[in-house]
Amino acid sequence: MSSFKQTDKTSITRLSKRGTYDQHTIYSILDEALFCTLAYVQNNEPFQIPTGFCRIDNKLYLHGSVGSFYMRELAEKKIPVCISVTLMDGVVLARSAFHHSVNYRSVVLFSKAELVTDEKELYKALEVFTNKMQPGRWDDIRQPNESEWKKTMVLAFPIEEVSAKIRTGDPKDDEEDYDLNIWAGVVPLKTVRMPAEKDPALKPGVELPDYLK
Amino acid sequence: MSSFKQTDKTSITRLSKRGTYDQHTIYSILDEALFCTLAYVQNNEPFQIPTGFCRIDNKLYLHGSVGSFYMRELAEKKIPVCISVTLMDGVVLARSAFHHSVNYRSVVLFSKAELVTDEKELYKALEVFTNKMQPGRWDDIRQPNESEWKKTMVLAFPIEEVSAKIRTGDPKDDEEDYDLNIWAGVVPLKTVRMPAEKDPALKPGVELPDYLK
Repeated sequence: MSSFKQTDKTSITRLSKRGTYDQHTIYSILDEALFCTLAYVQNNEPFQIPTGFCRIDNKLYLHGSVGSFYMRELAEKKIPVCISVTLMDGVVLARSAFHHSVNYRSVVLFSKAELVTDEKELYKALEVFTNKMQPGRWDDIRQPNESEWKKTMVLAFPIEEVSAKIRTGDPKDDEEDYDLNIWAGVVPLKTVRMPAEKDPALKPGVELPDYLK
Repeated sequence: MSSFKQTDKTSITRLSKRGTYDQHTIYSILDEALFCTLAYVQNNEPFQIPTGFCRIDNKLYLHGSVGSFYMRELAEKKIPVCISVTLMDGVVLARSAFHHSVNYRSVVLFSKAELVTDEKELYKALEVFTNKMQPGRWDDIRQPNESEWKKTMVLAFPIEEVSAKIRTGDPKDDEEDYDLNIWAGVVPLKTVRMPAEKDPALKPGVELPDYLK
């Protein structure tokens, strides 16, 4: 399995054994995460925007309104961005306060926006994004019309300068603390999809589709 | 209930009716979120770090190792930071692809680090943080010793320039789409704490504490 090349910006300096550049690992974190945060610099100050996204091959895709000032800026000025994604997998309860931790999987990507103008790529990005948010959804809904496509802007971010950081497993305490009468372990965290709740304005007779059962 | 003052940086321009500056709302989002992402500028490029945090009164607290380069930099150079927090509450399934959305609550804060040197404040920040990750935990564990305190750095970020953005409720479709035979509604998302899993190295006879049952 191939790995991304380490750079000055992506080298993990703190707890470096948690770092990885493995492509498969990075893709799997990106594909599981339902949102990312995008950071960029404006007037020498940091800005951040949480937003949905999807990945296709080696690009990360965001979409928004053509009226979005920041999206136009990112595309036109080739402003460097930093995009991060974090999945919280558990709270790690050690015997000492000091060794408390969390199990997590995070990705940090440095990239620059490419404005997507190819219609097929634009369409694909929206389809993959929609099906990521709700598997099976795209084929069931009213597809975008001409005017809606014109209002939609899609940006692609090549995935090249990227790293992941991961912690898994049990607490690691100081040797002498293992003998304390303190419970230790992990409380796993999970993002759960609850049963679908229908729109009160739903047309009578429309049944819940199989992919939502 | 008091509100934070709107500034150029915190004014919500896109979908401004989703914006709020209400203190109680902002505090409640910060208190529920288990991690934030902190962004700052280095060599005119954006960097981002996902990290745990807690809030006490009108300050947000992060902690880390005194060996953390970025934390020292933030404190010493008073580098402007942008901190964001996002809670995903649901996937909003409209009849049209275009009106698909998510229910979310997010906060974006602009601030600068203050190095916490007061011992009581330092202690309180660690206690509140630990109990946020696992309610009831602090009183049950081995408290930090002198050497651990010396290795721990706590930064405080005053909460002043801040906004929240929130979407709730059902899909909003175009008038003519309500008659389509397409299911519409919301799939609520929830972060769930699963049953605690004990450390295989747990001392025999140590029972699961009540706050984990």
